[in-house]
Amino acid sequence: MKCATILGPLGLLVSAVSAVKVNPLPAPRNITWGSSGPIPIRNVNLRTSDSHGHNNALIQNAWDRTWSAIVDLQWVPAATEAPIPVFDPFPTGAGKTKRASAATAVRSVQLSVTDGDADLQHGVDESYTLEVTATSGSVKITAHTVWGALHAFTTLQQLIISDGKGNLIIEQPVKIQDAPLYAHRGVMVDTGRNFITVPKILEQIDGLALSKLNVLHWHLDDTQSWPMQIRSYPQMTKDAYSTREIYTEADMRRVIAYARARGVRVIPEVDMPSHSSSGWKQVDPNIVTCINSWWSNDDWSKHTAVEPNPGQLDIIYNKTYEVVGNVYKDLSAIFTDNWFHVGGDELQNNCFNFSTYITEWFAEDPSRTYNDLSQYWLDHALPIFRGTGGPKRRLMMWEDIFINTDAAHNVPKDIVLQSWNNGLTNIKNLTASGYDVIVSSSDFLYLDCGFAGFVTNDPRYDVMTNPGGDVTFNFGGNGGSWCAPYKSWQRIYDYDFTANLTAAEAKHVLGAEAPLWSEQVDDVTISSKMWPRAAALGEMLWSGNRDASGQKRTTQLTQRLLNFREYLVANGVMATNLVPKYCLQHPHACDLYYNQTAVSP
Amino acid sequence: MKCATILGPLGLLVSAVSAVKVNPLPAPRNITWGSSGPIPIRNVNLRTSDSHGHNNALIQNAWDRTWSAIVDLQWVPAATEAPIPVFDPFPTGAGKTKRASAATAVRSVQLSVTDGDADLQHGVDESYTLEVTATSGSVKITAHTVWGALHAFTTLQQLIISDGKGNLIIEQPVKIQDAPLYAHRGVMVDTGRNFITVPKILEQIDGLALSKLNVLHWHLDDTQSWPMQIRSYPQMTKDAYSTREIYTEADMRRVIAYARARGVRVIPEVDMPSHSSSGWKQVDPNIVTCINSWWSNDDWSKHTAVEPNPGQLDIIYNKTYEVVGNVYKDLSAIFTDNWFHVGGDELQNNCFNFSTYITEWFAEDPSRTYNDLSQYWLDHALPIFRGTGGPKRRLMMWEDIFINTDAAHNVPKDIVLQSWNNGLTNIKNLTASGYDVIVSSSDFLYLDCGFAGFVTNDPRYDVMTNPGGDVTFNFGGNGGSWCAPYKSWQRIYDYDFTANLTAAEAKHVLGAEAPLWSEQVDDVTISSKMWPRAAALGEMLWSGNRDASGQKRTTQLTQRLLNFREYLVANGVMATNLVPKYCLQHPHACDLYYNQTAVSP
Repeated sequence: MKCATILGPLGLLVSAVSAVKVNPLPAPRNITWGSSGPIPIRNVNLRTSDSHGHNNALIQNAWDRTWSAIVDLQWVPAATEAPIPVFDPFPTGAGKTKRASAATAVRSVQLSVTDGDADLQHGVDESYTLEVTATSGSVKITAHTVWGALHAFTTLQQLIISDGKGNLIIEQPVKIQDAPLYAHRGVMVDTGRNFITVPKILEQIDGLALSKLNVLHWHLDDTQSWPMQIRSYPQMTKDAYSTREIYTEADMRRVIAYARARGVRVIPEVDMPSHSSSGWKQVDPNIVTCINSWWSNDDWSKHTAVEPNPGQLDIIYNKTYEVVGNVYKDLSAIFTDNWFHVGGDELQNNCFNFSTYITEWFAEDPSRTYNDLSQYWLDHALPIFRGTGGPKRRLMMWEDIFINTDAAHNVPKDIVLQSWNNGLTNIKNLTASGYDVIVSSSDFLYLDCGFAGFVTNDPRYDVMTNPGGDVTFNFGGNGGSWCAPYKSWQRIYDYDFTANLTAAEAKHVLGAEAPLWSEQVDDVTISSKMWPRAAALGEMLWSGNRDASGQKRTTQLTQRLLNFREYLVANGVMATNLVPKYCLQHPHACDLYYNQTAVSP
Repeated sequence: MKCATILGPLGLLVSAVSAVKVNPLPAPRNITWGSSGPIPIRNVNLRTSDSHGHNNALIQNAWDRTWSAIVDLQWVPAATEAPIPVFDPFPTGAGKTKRASAATAVRSVQLSVTDGDADLQHGVDESYTLEVTATSGSVKITAHTVWGALHAFTTLQQLIISDGKGNLIIEQPVKIQDAPLYAHRGVMVDTGRNFITVPKILEQIDGLALSKLNVLHWHLDDTQSWPMQIRSYPQMTKDAYSTREIYTEADMRRVIAYARARGVRVIPEVDMPSHSSSGWKQVDPNIVTCINSWWSNDDWSKHTAVEPNPGQLDIIYNKTYEVVGNVYKDLSAIFTDNWFHVGGDELQNNCFNFSTYITEWFAEDPSRTYNDLSQYWLDHALPIFRGTGGPKRRLMMWEDIFINTDAAHNVPKDIVLQSWNNGLTNIKNLTASGYDVIVSSSDFLYLDCGFAGFVTNDPRYDVMTNPGGDVTFNFGGNGGSWCAPYKSWQRIYDYDFTANLTAAEAKHVLGAEAPLWSEQVDDVTISSKMWPRAAALGEMLWSGNRDASGQKRTTQLTQRLLNFREYLVANGVMATNLVPKYCLQHPHACDLYYNQTAVSP
């Protein structure tokens, strides 16, 4: 048998010609294939001698789900990898290598977990190994925690495929050693601008688990609506969009449990003190300010909000902190994660002009600044957040609180800052200042960009001919979307967010999240805007965007991602398609460059 | 009773304060409301003394469908119109006017149709009148044709709403005189780049009918795939994406019948001689050229296609015309419309270098040009298209055949040209040259723009910092979408495509179509990319984008369109949402300008 040695689908040197068809996403950190070919799979049982403590049922349920997906889907890879073809006028041909068929069918999964009790929290060990040999008759999985075992299952789910004739097979021998590069790998959903039903949130969790993403950042409310039932203040849901568009406590617990069963943390966000009107105003109209002001983008000197509708918590009024504390306490009793996101973005100074408490506070001492006001918020709110949260509580905020013109003077270093502006520049600034950072740079990771603006009565669209000069609003420009263009999966995957950081600074980057703000999103489009782009982020955070030689492997991700998109849809996650199906069926035929290393380090 | 006189939802001076809640889309040409308020609706029967010839069943079915939609949906308007509020610090208040309740319930629809036999073809009379008075007990509808009657039904469907307590009501008295501004009002779907299932095509037809759009332009195939079963050459569907992704003759007839029952014409397109590879090559590989060439966007001097994969019909090879003729004949036997679109766009000269027939033809006479080659195509193909099509056949082509550098010398004036480039400039050029035109300007009406590029191995995304200067590719630029940005509904609605035309030229504009090219579209996103934006085009083509005073009524369309989006979803058409629901519930709160006439003539 003579094997050509080429660059395989995983960027490793593998014996190819007839390469293995499976191409799991995210690519594992280390995977080694033999060449003896697939063996059959039969009624696989999970065998484990370990106790997983209170996670025993979780791991059995996860296996049952995995096995059902394998058997029900009978997946045949929708896109396979191959070298870029040689086109006319040069004739092409490819030999095939016959493989020996292994005799032993796989009949069990042998699972070994070291610490069955480890909780699903930031930094938990998610590593696993997976091994199949021709004669073992089983898939051997080891993991330190059940959360690593879940990842092994979702890998296995992609390794076992149908032969197209009703038989399940697995390529072997194969040995995988795997662990994520980053501990925090997530997406953000926004249920304040538009309501998302629980089933659609669960669909996102399915996508997260399959992509080995492990965080659902839930931006619960915003000025526009307040969907969460709060025990202390049931009147807050008067500002839900309707009586059907409410999350009961049971709904929230259901989402958390569903996510936990799939290894996904749910981090709640109540955005404060900006982005606050709905809900709060039902408790006491005095704890919010400027809620009935004109947002005034047309007269910028009077603008009170970056988008309709306006509203901010009144930072000086004492009762604000009482209500904030009770809401935070009620939600902390529901959400099980140690982390809680308390907002802190986009404070608008003009909004505070509508508060007599604040204008009087400024009048009392003319030396006071908006920075002092931001600091006042932190000084009064953080003790509440820390006190209720307990010793394990970790707070997360948007970078604005530290980095904006009107930032607070002293932001404690244990607050995790989420960076969304100025790409590499802000990440450098935050990490150099000693903060742990979650990367959500809008130029790379905002999934809502590029759909024009949502604001109405906008005369900028009423232009018949290109006014000329360079790129303009309606002609190649942003067309009303402040963060245009739409971020392609290639754009997301190529992002080297630790470029220019020192080793010490890079350690402060805990991971990344792709936010999907929902001004123009509800149940109809949440999944197609989220997927499969978030899965490209998933791989980048799990095993990186480069191959062993340091070359960017964006082009090698192509077929893996095209197959994975079809797999998501088959699993009920309504991901958008990315290409004419022709591209999926003809590897590299839709490349922009014939040179396969056009995307460079 | 004292009524304020304000600008009502339809841009008419109506007695308002408590304005009528219904706001049908498209706005009728003429509508007059009284102020005596809604009356009940009970078990409405259709009564008609006319014969509608062979359309008797069609009109009864249409009524049954309309009545079912009314009763099943029990629609309560999701967005209602109101004047822009006065914001703080000025207090606001709105009085209410009590209305007299009318005694007589509506129990029937009295339909009168002048010409029941009129066929659904370009230019058929679509006008109707609709009247309800307090004492008539019936809705009176008159129409010249059944196609006008169908439009009356879809209007009535939006006039009858639920009172939220289980009762159906209709605002009255009301009198509507209505007819479209343009005869040709459509969208284009592309089933060549990706397959769209029949149910999803029918969903688009539902949206068309509700929006009073009347043309489905079906771009059937492209180089990437050939989904249509062709009786003469069953082997062509070997180039369908799979055996499930095929349109049988029965499928195509089903789409046509479903559309006809809803007043929608189906115009087929087989794009020739460019965009041709799949299907054709299964009949005879010699009738297509350059199909196995590298598309070579990276080496532009050798590019053979504007996108992967390459392929064009061989214009000089004789058998090409035999095969084209048989395919065209088979499809003409299925599609019932007098119009047939035969493509004609984006011929790539380099592709012809791969044909020995064509290179020899050029060598025979060095004076020959690519213009001569385009003319050769017309001279040989048009007689076939006209001959098979019969005396009523009208051919439609993309403007390229007349307007490009390599255009044909002599394009017959009876060919309808579809304009997609250079906005007003090309429309002026084509109409001044005497051609009838369908407007599809890509800067205004392309619904697929703004989703980045689909081509892979694209290093342009691999940029970490803004290279600066003006707007750049990844930072406010097109991000890989050649026709970026995404076209907002405001952009579409504002388009004055007859600006700068003489009256004679304007008469040559028969209407418009919004194309949705499907490189990045399949069943998952076709409806959300199409709707509700196509409905904004629908109103613009039906009753225009200006009010009686000539002012653009884009801002007045807002609440009508936001309600209509919810109505589409309620009717099973999966339209995307446009705004936070807050905007829908608070008229004008999300306007960019407080000045309601910011969008100008």
